[in-house]
Amino acid sequence: MNIADLPAVDTLLRTALTEDLGAGDITTRLTVAADTRARAQIAAKDEAVVAGLPLVRKLCDILGGDVDVRERLADGTRARGGDVLATLAGPAHTLLAVERVTLNLLQHLSGIATMTARFVDLVAGTGCRIVDTRKTLPGLRLLEKYAVRMGGGSNHRFGLADGILIKENHIAAAGGLAKAVLAARAGAPHGMRVEVECETLADVTEALGAGAELLLLDNMTVAQLTEAVQLIAHRALVEASGGVNEGTVRAVAGTGVDLVSVGALTHSAPAADIHMLLSLG
Amino acid sequence: MNIADLPAVDTLLRTALTEDLGAGDITTRLTVAADTRARAQIAAKDEAVVAGLPLVRKLCDILGGDVDVRERLADGTRARGGDVLATLAGPAHTLLAVERVTLNLLQHLSGIATMTARFVDLVAGTGCRIVDTRKTLPGLRLLEKYAVRMGGGSNHRFGLADGILIKENHIAAAGGLAKAVLAARAGAPHGMRVEVECETLADVTEALGAGAELLLLDNMTVAQLTEAVQLIAHRALVEASGGVNEGTVRAVAGTGVDLVSVGALTHSAPAADIHMLLSLG
Amino acid sequence: MNIADLPAVDTLLRTALTEDLGAGDITTRLTVAADTRARAQIAAKDEAVVAGLPLVRKLCDILGGDVDVRERLADGTRARGGDVLATLAGPAHTLLAVERVTLNLLQHLSGIATMTARFVDLVAGTGCRIVDTRKTLPGLRLLEKYAVRMGGGSNHRFGLADGILIKENHIAAAGGLAKAVLAARAGAPHGMRVEVECETLADVTEALGAGAELLLLDNMTVAQLTEAVQLIAHRALVEASGGVNEGTVRAVAGTGVDLVSVGALTHSAPAADIHMLLSLG
Amino acid sequence: MNIADLPAVDTLLRTALTEDLGAGDITTRLTVAADTRARAQIAAKDEAVVAGLPLVRKLCDILGGDVDVRERLADGTRARGGDVLATLAGPAHTLLAVERVTLNLLQHLSGIATMTARFVDLVAGTGCRIVDTRKTLPGLRLLEKYAVRMGGGSNHRFGLADGILIKENHIAAAGGLAKAVLAARAGAPHGMRVEVECETLADVTEALGAGAELLLLDNMTVAQLTEAVQLIAHRALVEASGGVNEGTVRAVAGTGVDLVSVGALTHSAPAADIHMLLSLG
Amino acid sequence: MNIADLPAVDTLLRTALTEDLGAGDITTRLTVAADTRARAQIAAKDEAVVAGLPLVRKLCDILGGDVDVRERLADGTRARGGDVLATLAGPAHTLLAVERVTLNLLQHLSGIATMTARFVDLVAGTGCRIVDTRKTLPGLRLLEKYAVRMGGGSNHRFGLADGILIKENHIAAAGGLAKAVLAARAGAPHGMRVEVECETLADVTEALGAGAELLLLDNMTVAQLTEAVQLIAHRALVEASGGVNEGTVRAVAGTGVDLVSVGALTHSAPAADIHMLLSLG
Amino acid sequence: MNIADLPAVDTLLRTALTEDLGAGDITTRLTVAADTRARAQIAAKDEAVVAGLPLVRKLCDILGGDVDVRERLADGTRARGGDVLATLAGPAHTLLAVERVTLNLLQHLSGIATMTARFVDLVAGTGCRIVDTRKTLPGLRLLEKYAVRMGGGSNHRFGLADGILIKENHIAAAGGLAKAVLAARAGAPHGMRVEVECETLADVTEALGAGAELLLLDNMTVAQLTEAVQLIAHRALVEASGGVNEGTVRAVAGTGVDLVSVGALTHSAPAADIHMLLSLG
Repeated sequence: MNIADLPAVDTLLRTALTEDLGAGDITTRLTVAADTRARAQIAAKDEAVVAGLPLVRKLCDILGGDVDVRERLADGTRARGGDVLATLAGPAHTLLAVERVTLNLLQHLSGIATMTARFVDLVAGTGCRIVDTRKTLPGLRLLEKYAVRMGGGSNHRFGLADGILIKENHIAAAGGLAKAVLAARAGAPHGMRVEVECETLADVTEALGAGAELLLLDNMTVAQLTEAVQLIAHRALVEASGGVNEGTVRAVAGTGVDLVSVGALTHSAPAADIHMLLSLG
Repeated sequence: MNIADLPAVDTLLRTALTEDLGAGDITTRLTVAADTRARAQIAAKDEAVVAGLPLVRKLCDILGGDVDVRERLADGTRARGGDVLATLAGPAHTLLAVERVTLNLLQHLSGIATMTARFVDLVAGTGCRIVDTRKTLPGLRLLEKYAVRMGGGSNHRFGLADGILIKENHIAAAGGLAKAVLAARAGAPHGMRVEVECETLADVTEALGAGAELLLLDNMTVAQLTEAVQLIAHRALVEASGGVNEGTVRAVAGTGVDLVSVGALTHSAPAADIHMLLSLG
Repeated sequence: MNIADLPAVDTLLRTALTEDLGAGDITTRLTVAADTRARAQIAAKDEAVVAGLPLVRKLCDILGGDVDVRERLADGTRARGGDVLATLAGPAHTLLAVERVTLNLLQHLSGIATMTARFVDLVAGTGCRIVDTRKTLPGLRLLEKYAVRMGGGSNHRFGLADGILIKENHIAAAGGLAKAVLAARAGAPHGMRVEVECETLADVTEALGAGAELLLLDNMTVAQLTEAVQLIAHRALVEASGGVNEGTVRAVAGTGVDLVSVGALTHSAPAADIHMLLSLG
Repeated sequence: MNIADLPAVDTLLRTALTEDLGAGDITTRLTVAADTRARAQIAAKDEAVVAGLPLVRKLCDILGGDVDVRERLADGTRARGGDVLATLAGPAHTLLAVERVTLNLLQHLSGIATMTARFVDLVAGTGCRIVDTRKTLPGLRLLEKYAVRMGGGSNHRFGLADGILIKENHIAAAGGLAKAVLAARAGAPHGMRVEVECETLADVTEALGAGAELLLLDNMTVAQLTEAVQLIAHRALVEASGGVNEGTVRAVAGTGVDLVSVGALTHSAPAADIHMLLSLG
Repeated sequence: MNIADLPAVDTLLRTALTEDLGAGDITTRLTVAADTRARAQIAAKDEAVVAGLPLVRKLCDILGGDVDVRERLADGTRARGGDVLATLAGPAHTLLAVERVTLNLLQHLSGIATMTARFVDLVAGTGCRIVDTRKTLPGLRLLEKYAVRMGGGSNHRFGLADGILIKENHIAAAGGLAKAVLAARAGAPHGMRVEVECETLADVTEALGAGAELLLLDNMTVAQLTEAVQLIAHRALVEASGGVNEGTVRAVAGTGVDLVSVGALTHSAPAADIHMLLSLG
Repeated sequence: MNIADLPAVDTLLRTALTEDLGAGDITTRLTVAADTRARAQIAAKDEAVVAGLPLVRKLCDILGGDVDVRERLADGTRARGGDVLATLAGPAHTLLAVERVTLNLLQHLSGIATMTARFVDLVAGTGCRIVDTRKTLPGLRLLEKYAVRMGGGSNHRFGLADGILIKENHIAAAGGLAKAVLAARAGAPHGMRVEVECETLADVTEALGAGAELLLLDNMTVAQLTEAVQLIAHRALVEASGGVNEGTVRAVAGTGVDLVSVGALTHSAPAADIHMLLSLG
């Protein structure tokens, strides 16, 4: 059982195929005999961390199951340009039908994994973890967060129901940061830590006093982060957030924060350069 | 009736909300009283071509309908940093529930519209159109292609069923480029033009001879494109494709091609910088 | 991969089976032992052009997969009365569960194919094509248009998104036929031809002047059609439409129009006479 | 609450609209200004028994709700040519978007109601009821059977789960007609009568002996039916079935059977001639 | 084909798995190597009538199909404590993923079957049948009513569409019990008997006079039931209903009623004690 | 925005209504005039903690929206026998259509809330929390866990993706309890605590040594729990689990454990006695 076997992913793949195939591939119907066989190689054109390969077989299975799919690399592998990721053999009509959706998924997910891996590499040795956010594309969160893991990153909460993160408006509504944290701790499921966003050192002190176990330091400078980390002194886990990029992440991680969250991993990663070479017969 | 009223979009928005909300927003439940009211401003932090604003009201309506949404700009507008795109007023629980999904959609679609507009600007005056591809994210094609239009671009086919594009493998299967074009013309719905991919000038000649009305010149240099355009001499529409970027698009358009298709518009546009400022009371 | 392998068709077949089976076949449960085996022959009782046979295996597979289905004829074949279309062997419970839905689909789709074939035969030798319309039954368009192809007909657009057809109201809204055509040509995806409905010869002249590539001549007499075809002189494709029936189609086609569209193919074709003979053991 | 308010119908209507609208109405987008208003009249061109009118408002509501729909006749009414069935006023884009699906449904359902009413008229005074069958189009059974009622007919079971009908194969599997009837009676939900198909008078005798409450006399001649009815002598309800048409139904009803089932009502009724006249402003 | 092969059940099982698995089993991912194999035994800890076993294989198949499932007992069997119901062998990740949903279903359905069997045992020899009601849990009716059958009970109608049951409000609206019964008889599908709720002996007399075939005696005492049964004298089937429990059912059945309906079977049956023993390797 | 506004709940309610209504309420159609008005009171017949009231309005809205629903009590209230929970006024057809599904939901959810409240009352003053489990009914988890909160209980994880709970098999696969805990801590999302099942005091010591923050003491006696709590000495939160019932929960809570989880809350709570009194006019 792998990521492609989750029922929610099956639904997503059917949606994707229907979106692209609609009433069927008219070009192929008019130009390729129905019994034509084909083979295909999925390969990286450039360096990329691969994510999404188990989806290939599932896509083919949804379209009738007659394609022999062989994965040559495992998700999470750092492929070099030219590396073959998978091979396919089966009816030409099926391979042509599945081609674009397969590539769209592999390129997007590998793009996320690849960007994640760059951030992970940049903080190597600091003990700091790279985590994602909820800034994902509608319908794709489950797969995008999987891709973050394949790139060596860690997942933040999957949605509003599986984690507690107290932000500015919650604080205002609750009548202060400490009150918000106490209210959350009183009602939180016992398996969840309470996280609270802090904008100042005073916030940090208040949060620790109220028993927050996770502090999100939002949009702080490296100097501020350094000071905050010293103040916190391991009494809570510390997550830095806000506008971190490949140029700044090393310095941010160097302040001693435990986690850096990066929205760009899922909302702005360019597609990885992966292609499919298809040949008949 | 607008883009948000399409039944397919309604389904997508429900999926997105369910993905983020799951069993409900636990943080807000624990810290914000149920009858708290709130107001929000959605604003651009940086220049952006806006796309997706009609989705905001729809998202609020799906969650119970008590939010007053006012669009301040129309989709397709070039907003400047600081411009307010829309305002919302209603229950704080609903506004907090809808915030992330709303921004994820607006940022992604406006990102696409913004990148498209840059390409469109770059070819201004050439008469050349910028068009999208099928390199979209699963489940989002309809909205992404809408965003391309909002950025001033044009849509290529929406899927394999609503356009004919003969590629290398179709040609091989049909026994040659001319045979493929003739087969497609014989069976094509009468509202569709037959498009064929050409890699050489010989291909171009063969395609025109067979009556192709659209030629896709794939991965040609500017010099090759220039030569091809002269050869074609308006006997067919000409689309240039393959690795075109912001640095090269002007030169490509200058060759006289009618269309340039750019996959990056939908697979690699970074999110636009749009945020929501929420205040209670 | 065939028509039954499209994900959209899978959804339709599940809906159909659920509609008929609901909580299960109570009669069979009470009267037939669960391990009873059965065989079935699907046969034509009368002449019919067959459409929908690949759906049979899919229906059986959805209900558990233990039925051996053999197609004896291919879709598009002109069967004579008595011809066996397919044979099935498997659990009696499954065969009885699948019988009615299978026949409902085969009879309806073959009814469409058969009526289409009659129209196609009637225009044989004229070079005119028979095309369908959007006058289909909700949820069945994809399959119904497939059946039209199996009968030798051609497909018009599948919906409002994959073809341009300017009608009376569009013309009124745009401020005239030529303005409507020009607006459509300016914004149309490059793979689509612009079609416009013409009611008079003046309309025809205006349409050609504006660059329309497809003219829909609506409800014209044979004499008017003849005159229009001469006026058009191959500068555009010509589609005749409106109340054409088996008695008039030959004359209409004889006017030199390229296409005749017939709504009745999909909205009024009687079911083909196909039955299933089931025997136990 | 009416037929259009059933959740299952809502799903069907969304499917139908998505099927036709897909990514949106491209012709209207290019030729009609977004703020254009329109009015429409739905009218019968010929005599018809109307069915499906409550669906019109529902279709408009699904597309955003800004259309004022007024039903002028109630479902089940016998309209004459020219009768206005409903009027609509609202955004031109919405009216054009909803037009085809609305007509497809009204024409199909009214076609069924109209054919049903002809059969009902033909048996007037005999006390015999016209009933439908399971020979419906996939996904449309609920609406088609509603249309039968609007035409004055009665419904047979809706599927395999809500009625017991013992046929030839059940009899063979159970080891004889009487055994099948007894098995069904022993296990049948108490609200269901057991119906059994009889092909001979011997079958009838056996069925009555086993306590069958409903006899389906399949493909019998008028003479055979007459004899059977006398034999049965009101000990069970009698349904005649098999190839009954408008020419024969009166004679069949005249034999004294209680019900005549007619598959053609739902599988072969031609569309009723209903159109929508749309005007701008 | 069995209960698990109904398309409606497939949908339900996918919903259940998605509900539990969401984005995947994080504990197992972090602690169990992906290629670990496992075996499992599903066993009863206490006496139970088993229902739902065919669902086990289906659940495994939905998650990728590599599990070997062997049913050791058939649904409807009275298992003793310790009895093995089924064994599974396959990837540990799949077995752990499927465990909780499998048990939730088996325990619930077997709980219903077990409670039903107790009621059935209590009325043994009286000729009275135990039937269920529509007091089921949303989404689970089909399976719950299946479980009632496995426990030896009979099914009442599955919903408002497949049976006629005239209650107090229908009587008031129709202007009296007899009028309601006559209206229902006139319009009822011929396969359905008309059932009417009676609260007094006068109601019974009125119902019989109007031709009701099924009488629901609601909340009557044993004495009242006895009197009513004598009055009815086999002219209609008699169902007793309302607050019947294990302490009273025997006496109620002893009055000569044909059926006793028990809501508690589906709304209040405690889970059966069934567990799954899983071992690695 | 309340529990009924979650898109996932909307889907569930539509499924429930479709399940009960199917093709429509035949009894009401035949006996109640379409324009009849009605009023209804939903009331408790016995003491109950109410849960699910916001669903009532949603159910009515799905069926057309013309019902005026007034909630008289809020979810979580302890109602006494006779207390009115809500009143409804609207079309009789809608009220009759919605009655059964409404009651099925209210009775089930209030049954859970009521049982939960009893457990909560029993541990009053101990500081111990009552929590639910994943032993819920397929499709209903979200609502059932909401009902647990309404009864004063707390939620354990919603599924396998939003919490970490290491059990026997994970320990075996990881090569020991400490190894499993360490692996989970290394990979766990930072907002989640790692919980591990302990069967002995040795397990407890090993778990604490490995840094587990939550210990699940499974099936321990009160004496064992007491000893374990002393050993743990507030270094981790302690959850007692396994066969706890109303007779034993006070003693278990008295051992000083922080949480007691009770599967019966969601798998075996009998329906609360809530009814709907409906009157016409």
